[in-house]
Amino acid sequence: MKLFYSPGSCALASHIALAEAGADYTAVRVDFGSDEQRRPDYLAINPKGRVPALVTGQGVLTETPAILVYVAQTFPDARLAPLNDPFAFAKVQAFNNYLCATVHVAHAHRMRGYRWADDPAAIAEMKRKAPQTVGECFALIEQQMLAGPWVMGETYTICDPYLFTLSQWLEADGVDLDRIPKVGDHRRRMSERPGVKKAIAQERGQITA
Amino acid sequence: MKLFYSPGSCALASHIALAEAGADYTAVRVDFGSDEQRRPDYLAINPKGRVPALVTGQGVLTETPAILVYVAQTFPDARLAPLNDPFAFAKVQAFNNYLCATVHVAHAHRMRGYRWADDPAAIAEMKRKAPQTVGECFALIEQQMLAGPWVMGETYTICDPYLFTLSQWLEADGVDLDRIPKVGDHRRRMSERPGVKKAIAQERGQITA
Repeated sequence: MKLFYSPGSCALASHIALAEAGADYTAVRVDFGSDEQRRPDYLAINPKGRVPALVTGQGVLTETPAILVYVAQTFPDARLAPLNDPFAFAKVQAFNNYLCATVHVAHAHRMRGYRWADDPAAIAEMKRKAPQTVGECFALIEQQMLAGPWVMGETYTICDPYLFTLSQWLEADGVDLDRIPKVGDHRRRMSERPGVKKAIAQERGQITA
Repeated sequence: MKLFYSPGSCALASHIALAEAGADYTAVRVDFGSDEQRRPDYLAINPKGRVPALVTGQGVLTETPAILVYVAQTFPDARLAPLNDPFAFAKVQAFNNYLCATVHVAHAHRMRGYRWADDPAAIAEMKRKAPQTVGECFALIEQQMLAGPWVMGETYTICDPYLFTLSQWLEADGVDLDRIPKVGDHRRRMSERPGVKKAIAQERGQITA
């Protein structure tokens, strides 16, 4: 499999899942600095011009929550999701959907407000409010969603690499980490896992993918 | 099961799936007009203060893509998703994730810009651009994603009620329907299905749920 990623993006979640599943994969960097994601050869892979994109033997997959479940289902021995319990599986999915549709979106208003407005003043206003909206999302995660030690409790799932990935952005998003100590603990615990270290080192070019 | 919904919201997708699955459910209206979704009794059900929320025998589920998969897995005889094919299932999930994280979000900037900005001028600017961003999303769906006659091709899936639900908003979002004829055809085909008619009639109070 081939994972297209950009360093610092949400593709890290899929990257960690592949590493933890023991998958045979190659990580391919897409250079956002030169707008590589908008070039025809990349748009042929992912017409949305975003990362992640996972090239499999059957075709291309996009969208982090979909890729995470695909990895969990394709490598069941890694036990990354409760695949045989529809309710528990739906809880995992609901958490990851909240991350993609609400938390990541709140974050995107800090640097990518141009998606939803053209006026520079409006874009600046979105940027100003982002610390508040991202902070409110993480407060809800802290108080209501993160069971501890992992997101779903004692069992590690595909919720954990995804939360870890979005929590990389907290400082830049201006969120006060003192208010979300469980999220901070989770981030530290995640950063000690070998698969997480491997994925991060690959994205930084310290080891070849 | 009990589905909390607001008429005209994305909860319609889950409502249709329940009706088409032949589930035994009650639909409970949450009155957004009186801000019922922010009252303590509703926040106890869904701390996010949003719809849909599905109360099951095991607990509460939120987030449309998660609920849709839960319905498909709980009622496998209804054949609403390719449950035994991880790649096909991931394609279904990726489509529904695009709807929740990109299309619904683009739409939300028309009426709910206050989520991401306080300045009225910025909120007005988001509203102004919404027809363009929603239109671009549906153009991508038209050209790249909607295989026809159903989203995934010959097989009806949980992508279909979700696309149908979001396509209810096209006129109000100011999108030119002449540019997306396949989406229009899909909407017409969907509206003829008995489960769709039942869910819509229940939400309009024409029949009891």
